[in-house]
Amino acid sequence: MNISVVENVLKLNDELAAVNRGKLKDHRIYTVNLIGAPGCGKTSLLESTATLLKNKLRLAIIVGDLTTQRDADRMALYCNHVVQVNTGKGCHLEANHVRTAMERLPLKEIDLLIIENVGNLICPVGFDLGQDVKVGMFSAAEGDDKAAKHPYIVQEAGLLLLNKMDLLPYVNFRQEIFRADIHRINPKVDILDISATRGDNMAAWTNWLCARAAKSATQ
Amino acid sequence: MNISVVENVLKLNDELAAVNRGKLKDHRIYTVNLIGAPGCGKTSLLESTATLLKNKLRLAIIVGDLTTQRDADRMALYCNHVVQVNTGKGCHLEANHVRTAMERLPLKEIDLLIIENVGNLICPVGFDLGQDVKVGMFSAAEGDDKAAKHPYIVQEAGLLLLNKMDLLPYVNFRQEIFRADIHRINPKVDILDISATRGDNMAAWTNWLCARAAKSATQ
Repeated sequence: MNISVVENVLKLNDELAAVNRGKLKDHRIYTVNLIGAPGCGKTSLLESTATLLKNKLRLAIIVGDLTTQRDADRMALYCNHVVQVNTGKGCHLEANHVRTAMERLPLKEIDLLIIENVGNLICPVGFDLGQDVKVGMFSAAEGDDKAAKHPYIVQEAGLLLLNKMDLLPYVNFRQEIFRADIHRINPKVDILDISATRGDNMAAWTNWLCARAAKSATQ
Repeated sequence: MNISVVENVLKLNDELAAVNRGKLKDHRIYTVNLIGAPGCGKTSLLESTATLLKNKLRLAIIVGDLTTQRDADRMALYCNHVVQVNTGKGCHLEANHVRTAMERLPLKEIDLLIIENVGNLICPVGFDLGQDVKVGMFSAAEGDDKAAKHPYIVQEAGLLLLNKMDLLPYVNFRQEIFRADIHRINPKVDILDISATRGDNMAAWTNWLCARAAKSATQ
């Protein structure tokens, strides 16, 4: 009985995700589902991303948190279209959250939608939101064992970001271990070493987004 | 239907947690449920804790992870009684995991049991394991907004640890914001600023454990 309920929840989620995906495709919006642990730097990344994409792409952001409006307030300084979703005790975003949030966005005026999921490396991975790609985010401050301990996001990600490279001199993080674990779990995925605050590889990241959004716009 | 299943799962968990609690009390074992995000430093804390408690308290550790034996391997160097629980895709420990792990521990030879929960600030909070106290753990590298964004662990914790104080000079972490949020959410909880790697306040932490374990032993 328990299993059938879980299956029904996931089935309903998949149906709503398909509706989201269709709507986003109709509007030629490229959509990223950004997943990482609390404090890996998702919001700082999006602040910097919004600044760099200004006059290049029309960006919208949906941001999930248990509670508070803080992330949306931070990002509203950099991005015109920000919707905060509060999940209460919910540990991940579901397609229905995104569907509701999309109703508050002017879809005709958007090229790129980034969904910042709830800070959690586990539960968000299993819920399709209608995105084109999942981007997994780690931080050098978290330790070099986190890819091995969280293989599902590594398996499903179209790109992995390793943030807080500015802290590398002050922490015990062996990059060769981190990369070897990732290549064992998902040999095809690219890894981008970034620092959202210092700017490392932020051009590579925004170029990656622009290239995909451009492709999406012509399809 | 969905709600009743969730209620049944929690009810069964509470029943098993009560069994664990009775058994731990019979053996006068003080039990800590340690909850924090991936990479906040739980395993490093326990390595250091085990070293400092040697010849003071007989320590056992149950460690939860989705996958890998890495934490148990790390801690087995410092602690004689370590049991690794792998939850697969499960985002938290449940009382049944702890019940099974306890069967592999020599309970008569243990004063203090620390359960390192799965790296996740959300889901573990709702599941009683039979512990005496929940200890919530944050890291200065995660940002000063994490208590506000994760209020449930702050509400339920008997003690909060702020780890990685050694990184404070290199990150933008306003301690007054972090503390103000905590005091608003849970005015009674103590906060201990620590560095598991540099040793800051590790004596205060182990004294806290020793005092509670001593009280537990005489009850």
